[in-house]
Order: sequence, then C-alpha cells, then structure tokens
Amino acid sequence: MATDQAKSEQRTDAYEQFEDRIERITNVGNAAGILRWDQEVVMPEEGTPARAQQLSALSSISHELLTADETGELLEQLEAGETTESSREASGEAASSDLAEERQAAVREVRRKYDRETSVPQELVEEISETTANAHPTWKQAKEEDDFEQFAPTLEKLVELKREYANHIDPDADPYAVLFADYEPYLDLETAEQVLEQLRDELVPLIDAIDDSDVDLATDTFAGEFDDDDQEALARDVLDSLGYDWGRGRLDTAPHPFSSGTQFDARVTTRFEEDDLLGSLTSTIHEFGHANYTLGLPDENYGTPLGESRDLTVHESQSRLWENHVGRSQPFWEQFLPTVADRFAELEDATPEDAYEAANQVYDDNLIRVEADELTYHLHIVIRFEIERDLISGDLAVEDVPEAWNDKYEEYLGVRPETDAEGCLQDIHWSHGSFGYFPTYSLGSVLAAQLYAAAEDDLGDLDDRIEDGDFDDLNGWLRENIHQHGKRYTTPELIEQATGEEFTADYFLEYAKSKYGELYELEGY
Amino acid sequence: MATDQAKSEQRTDAYEQFEDRIERITNVGNAAGILRWDQEVVMPEEGTPARAQQLSALSSISHELLTADETGELLEQLEAGETTESSREASGEAASSDLAEERQAAVREVRRKYDRETSVPQELVEEISETTANAHPTWKQAKEEDDFEQFAPTLEKLVELKREYANHIDPDADPYAVLFADYEPYLDLETAEQVLEQLRDELVPLIDAIDDSDVDLATDTFAGEFDDDDQEALARDVLDSLGYDWGRGRLDTAPHPFSSGTQFDARVTTRFEEDDLLGSLTSTIHEFGHANYTLGLPDENYGTPLGESRDLTVHESQSRLWENHVGRSQPFWEQFLPTVADRFAELEDATPEDAYEAANQVYDDNLIRVEADELTYHLHIVIRFEIERDLISGDLAVEDVPEAWNDKYEEYLGVRPETDAEGCLQDIHWSHGSFGYFPTYSLGSVLAAQLYAAAEDDLGDLDDRIEDGDFDDLNGWLRENIHQHGKRYTTPELIEQATGEEFTADYFLEYAKSKYGELYELEGY
Repeated sequence: MATDQAKSEQRTDAYEQFEDRIERITNVGNAAGILRWDQEVVMPEEGTPARAQQLSALSSISHELLTADETGELLEQLEAGETTESSREASGEAASSDLAEERQAAVREVRRKYDRETSVPQELVEEISETTANAHPTWKQAKEEDDFEQFAPTLEKLVELKREYANHIDPDADPYAVLFADYEPYLDLETAEQVLEQLRDELVPLIDAIDDSDVDLATDTFAGEFDDDDQEALARDVLDSLGYDWGRGRLDTAPHPFSSGTQFDARVTTRFEEDDLLGSLTSTIHEFGHANYTLGLPDENYGTPLGESRDLTVHESQSRLWENHVGRSQPFWEQFLPTVADRFAELEDATPEDAYEAANQVYDDNLIRVEADELTYHLHIVIRFEIERDLISGDLAVEDVPEAWNDKYEEYLGVRPETDAEGCLQDIHWSHGSFGYFPTYSLGSVLAAQLYAAAEDDLGDLDDRIEDGDFDDLNGWLRENIHQHGKRYTTPELIEQATGEEFTADYFLEYAKSKYGELYELEGY
Repeated sequence: MATDQAKSEQRTDAYEQFEDRIERITNVGNAAGILRWDQEVVMPEEGTPARAQQLSALSSISHELLTADETGELLEQLEAGETTESSREASGEAASSDLAEERQAAVREVRRKYDRETSVPQELVEEISETTANAHPTWKQAKEEDDFEQFAPTLEKLVELKREYANHIDPDADPYAVLFADYEPYLDLETAEQVLEQLRDELVPLIDAIDDSDVDLATDTFAGEFDDDDQEALARDVLDSLGYDWGRGRLDTAPHPFSSGTQFDARVTTRFEEDDLLGSLTSTIHEFGHANYTLGLPDENYGTPLGESRDLTVHESQSRLWENHVGRSQPFWEQFLPTVADRFAELEDATPEDAYEAANQVYDDNLIRVEADELTYHLHIVIRFEIERDLISGDLAVEDVPEAWNDKYEEYLGVRPETDAEGCLQDIHWSHGSFGYFPTYSLGSVLAAQLYAAAEDDLGDLDDRIEDGDFDDLNGWLRENIHQHGKRYTTPELIEQATGEEFTADYFLEYAKSKYGELYELEGY
C-alpha cells in the first residue's frame, strides 16, 4: 500500500493535493478517536498521563496540518477554480457535475474549519484547553460537595474565554451564535431559538395536562434486579434485532455511554445498572442510532468530508429516531418483549402495552436531565439554553446562575431543586467550556420526528414492519436520504432534500401530542 | 495541560526543542501502538481498510518528523555542544553530569535512527512497504498449499530490496550485519555469530545425549481438555502471582500473543487452546516478562529514549528469564501447581516434579519452531540464521532454500521436514522482509541466563523465594540493573554494568547442561 507521501507525488493537481492533506488530517483525527475509545473502555486506570500526551500530540499535529499555509493556498486555488468547474458543469457532463459538487462541498467544509481554526490565536486555544482540563476536577468536587461557589470562578473564566474565542472568529456576530455553530454550523441560532421557544410554549401545557390526568400508566413493568451478563445478552439481542453490523462494530460498557468510529468500524457502548433494565436498553438503542448513521457513510469517501457525518443535530436525529420513534413505540414492544421475557422470567407476564406504558412514563418530579422522559427532556434543554445564552451575552452573572436555574425549573417543570448538585451542577458540559451544545439535543429530537414522518410519507405506515422486526425499509430510507450524503449538503439542504420541507418542530409536536394525548387520555389532544 | 506547541515556545534551548520533537515522534509511535493492539485484539474484522490508512498516516508523520531538516540541525547543534557539557561535567557537578549523560544517550539514539532513516530513499521504503504488504497473503497461501514456488519470486524480490536498503545505510558493511542492526543495534553480528555457533556446537551433542537417555519424563501431566474461561482465570492467577501491575496493564487474547505499550500501560495478550494448558501458561509468563520490562521504564522519561526499552535482545532476555528460569523451574511448580489444581481437578494428583518434567520435555521429532522446547529451539534459530545470512550474501539462491532448510534440520535436529509448510514456509518473518530478526530470540535466551546468574550472584540462590512466590528481590534486581535505564546505555554497556562481564553464552550453556543433565540423568553433564 502506498504511503501518504507516495500518493501525494502521484497526484499532481490541486484537488488531489488537497484531498491527501485532508485525508491525513482525518486519519489523525480517527486515530485519536480510537485512543479515546480505548481510554473510556479498556485502558488501565493509570494509563492517563501517557494517553494525555498522545492525544495532545495528535491534536497539535492535526491543528498544524489544517492551519498550515499550504492548506490556505490550496483552498484559494480550488475556490478560484470553481468557475471552471461550473462551466464544465454547464456543458452537461453529469459525472463531472457530480464530481464538481462533491469537491465544492469538501472545499466548503474545510474552508469553514480552516477559517475558524486560523482565526483563534494558539495561546487562547491553549488557555481554553488548560482551563477546561482543570475545570473538570473542580466541577466534580463542587458537585460532590454541592457547592456552586467552588465552581463559580472557573465558570466565570470559561465564559470570558469562550466569549473571547467567539470574538476572534467573528467580531460582528452574537458570540453565543458563534459558539453554537461549533456544534451545529448550518442551522442558524435564530432557527434554533424559534424551535426551542415553540417546544417550551407547547410542551409546558401538554405536560401540565398530563400531570392533571387521572390515567395511571404501568410503572413497574421493568421493576426488578437484573444481572449484568443477562443485560448484556439482551443488549446484543436488541442490536441484532435492529440490524447492527457486527462485522463493523462491537458492544462494550462505559460509564457514560457513547458511540464512535468510522464507516468501517463504528462501536457502541452502553451501561448496565442492576435496577434499570429499561434505561440500559433505551441507551443501547440510542447509541445504535448514532453508530448506524456512521455505518451508512459511503466507504469510498472515507477520509474526506463526503465520508463524514453531518453535525450534531443530524447525528442526534438518528439516535433519537431509533430510541424514541422505534424503541419507545407500541409495535416495537409487541415484537421485542418476548425476547426480554426469554432473558428475564420477571417479565413473562408483562404485556406489550405494559412495556410501552413503562417506556413512556412522564415524570412530574424529575430534576435530572439524563433521567428525563421524552417530553420533559426538552424543558431541561430550554432551561440550559436560556441560561447559557444569557451568560455569554452578559445578561446573567455567574453568581446568579443557581437562582435563575431553580426559578426556571419551578416555572417550566413545577419542581425546584433543593441543591446545586441536583440543579445547575448536574451536567458536565460547561466544565468542558461547551456553551451551545445543549440545544442540539432538542434539535435532534425535533428532526427525528420530521424525518420519521417523511419516511412514513414515502414508505407508508411503518408500524406493521416494526412489529415484524423488519427495519430494512426504514433503514434503507435513512441510508438513502441521510447517511450516504456525508457532509455533501449543509444541514438545511439535507433536511429539505430528505423531507421536502424546511426544518420544523411541527412534526415533533404533533407526534408528542398525539402519542401522549392517547396514552394519558387527554382532552383536546 | 499545555499542548506540545506551547511547551515548545516555553523551552528555548536546543535540547528542549529536541526533546519536544522526540516526544512528539514517540507519542505518534505510541498512538500507532494502541491502534495495532486494537487491531489485533478488539477491532471488528471489517475495520482493516480504515485502520491501514490511519497507521500509514501516523507512520508517514513520524518519518517526516524524524527526517526533517530541523532534526538534523538540532542533532548537529547538540553534538557540537557536547564539549561544553563535558567541561561542565569536569567541574564536578554530579547532577549536571548525570543530565549530560542522559542527553548524550538521547542524542546518540536519535542520531542513529536519523542517519538510518535519512539514508534510505523514500521510494525504496515505499517499495519495501508495498512488497511486504503483498507478500503476506502470498506467503500465507503458499504455506496453505504447501508450495514454496508460489512464494519464491516474492522472497527473491524482498532479498534484493533489503540488500539495496542495507547498501544505502552503509555501502561498506556486510548487508546482513546492517539488517541485523535494525533489531539489535549494539551487539555486533560477529558476537551474535559466535554465540550461535557455540550454541550449535554444544547443544547438538547435548540433545543427542538426551535422545539416547533412557529416562522417561512425565509427559501427560497437563493432558486433558481445558475450558477457555478457566484457562483465562488461571492466566490471571499466574500474572497475580508474578506481581503484574493491573493498574497499568490488562490481559486479552490474540491469535499470536504479544505484549505492547508504555510504562503507564503495558498490556499482555495470550491464547487459549483446549488441549494446551501448559502452552498457554508459558506464553502468558513470556509476555509478562516483556510487559514487566516496559513497566519498569522510568515514568519521568516517558517520551524520550531514556524512557524506552533497549532493543530486541534485552527485551527477549526479559521474557525468556521469566518464562524459562522462573516458569520452567522446579520451585515455581512447587509454588504454582496447587493454584492450577484449584482450577482444574485433572491436576489434583500431579506432583510438582511431574509438572516440572512436563514443562521441560525435550522433543526429538519436532519440526516447528514455536512448539520447540528450551533446547532444540536454538537449533531452529541457528538454521534460520545460517539460511538468511547466506540468502542476503548471495551464497544461497532462493530456489535452493527448501533443500538447504531440510538438510540442516536433518543435520542439527535429526528430523527432515516432508513438506515446505512444515519446513521453510512455517514462519511469517521473511514475508515481512525481516532478515536478521531470528537471532535475537536466541541472544535473548542467552542473556536471560547471564542475567539470572548475576542476579543470584548478588541476591543469593533464588529457589526458596520462588517457591514462596516471592519475586520481589528478582524483580527489584531487574528494575535496578536493566529496566530503569531505558536506552541510556548501549546493549554491551548495559550487560557489562548489570553482570560485570561481557555478553557470553557460557551461563546459558552451563544452565542448560546442568538442568537437562540432571533431568535426563546424563553421564558427564
């Protein structure tokens, strides 16, 4: 096999040089991905000091390759050549037009990253990196000791640094919008805000109505103590059932489940808790959705943006679609409950309806985002979004975060945290300096509903197929409309092509009202 | 944590720039090590295409960093500055003298690699890399079909390419000596040849005497069928017993057991075959020896040659010392047999003497190197050494390899392979283009005996301690005399410092004659 450099010498034109460079950067990034998987899943506990240095070296190499003058020069050459490509396109060569489109997309994606990474001074990048490295233990201890004040100075510092970071990237833009674009580059913040407002405005009354409902759903379907090994066997069953490609994947455990990898090797992790069989199952299905997206990326574009997944909104749409629209559906439990009962005699007498109800319980007193149901979840996100947006704009002082947090929980969810540990210290994200990440969770759910509706529009009602354990049509639709495109289209373009419409929360709200209106027998839903 | 580049800006002098550069190269290499471990142990089978690209990218980056002009300039600056260091040394600053010695060692090691890598044209490196990539499947198929002629053209090509490679590195030297130095850079080929000749000359009559002996050793001690899971539990027992540091290690399975990693994370792999409990155990102990060496490297020198293990002879001395001098000793079986019997009722009635005998059986009809006993093993190596040396010098034509192979087996071991699959096609090494690797296996065994004798010279007889399962003194001696030095000393310096003598086969032959003379009740031994 030729080395990178050999290839580089064979390829003479600018695009091929560009592609070699990008492939190298991607391969370094993917190597780092394996090192991080290893660290979370199999690394011995004392391996950290060496691993930190290995990851830091790969990250520096990747940054230097991306921000090198050569990258900028190649981008300029390729952008200047676009008119030539377009005129060739106009001459009606279909293959060449497709190629031109692919190349333009790759150039667009790299340009975006190049501009962002070259605009932030290296010293600031390092200061953020050092501050977040130290912020993690500080946050952890503050949470353990339920003492926001311990974390406040660090949070203050991170807010300032990230504002400065945003200002380097675009001094004329709203800094929070710039930060948000690190996680979702193509849906603008205005769209995100509208969606989140709509969720808040329509979910609060829906949840109120549920609170007022006299219906008692089955809650103890999955009550019991479940052995880890049996839970693992069941997790493998559910992945088998959904069609996970074991030739390109594996299942392991991690304290915070994640999936990672490439189209050749996309791995799932999950967790097992003795008293939470349902939580483990839904987490496994969620991570399957992520890995299944990765596995659908085109092999032949490995190493370039065309072979990489779109950003967090689209990724989360895939995990939520499988977790919620499939895994929390009545037909899924019709099909899958017997498999659960085969593993766990405790569930022999449960009905699919019991399982469906237990999987869709709406909790009126939950304070913790990661334990939230499908509806209240979004209010947890809205609260974080509103607070971090105001923190970055300066409208909210760090010291006022706990009160603002608690007030919003009371207002939107009718519960007030009694401690910061159960309140504004519960999530790790801010200690990573990740402001603007939270909204993508809700945007992903919203997109999942829109995609699922479009898929049923094209394929007809999917319930019977899910009840038969036949996911081929659904997955084929996702492959064709989402996965295979990689980063060829921007997020709005991809959504429009897949669904024929702009991004909208209407399908999610329709789905939520209809499903929960029926479950809780709500008037007017 | 500061990134590499930040560190680089803080450090201004040449040595610190040099160290940053070397640390980065080391970290890239260690990242590749994790990717290879992953590939052998956990990677899904279809992950290969992406993994090959990731490893190729890391390898190119590492090569470019090492052979860059900046590396050469820093080396020159540091070498020119050595007199300054020496004069500072002369002023009697002990700490500074130690520092100067460390730096000189690091410069020596990097200079050696720099000179070798810069002297070979990149096109030749790539041609070798492509040829070996294709050679592997060709060799595999030839072996499966027992047809040397299928592999002969590839072997011919590899011999030519490696001759050319050696000629670029040193046109005045014996090409085989240059190739040998890729695996053992500091023990010259003449020394290696003398040792191998001495082994051949003294082991052939010893093995003949054993063949003639009427003594029947216990052979069926470990006969039976052993469950994989129980074998794994026993492998963990033996690693516990030897003092493996699980906080910095782990045990997994791999088709071809290996160990890899750094002082922070040195992992062992082993294999389990239902009918070969003893083989799995000795393989585990062997790999423990490698990993235990790695774990003894100084933490504070991670990333530089001072924090890296010496080359293959020394590494193999560590695995062989634990495998043979500990794991095949009578006191070891006194101590460990009850643990085996706890796991496997089949061994309840076995005596330590039975186990000791079974572990030291000399086979007079074995054709396969990896299944050889502690004595005949070296004749397998001598044969390979003599053949590959003559191949590279041109004294032996590729087409004549099978006959030469078979003749030597008949001459040295009294057995003649009936097929090439069991003959000259059995090992993978030549398909990798690895000529000069085989001798290091025997050199390692020889050194193991010399080190073990020196350790007993310093610590007194170790049998009682091994029988008590107390390996602290032995391991402490190895830590102090071998492990902690990393690449500070050359191989001959290290041996001389640890044992007070030059490298010699005398201890190994003494050990072999005394042990096997007693086991087989040989006259005159």
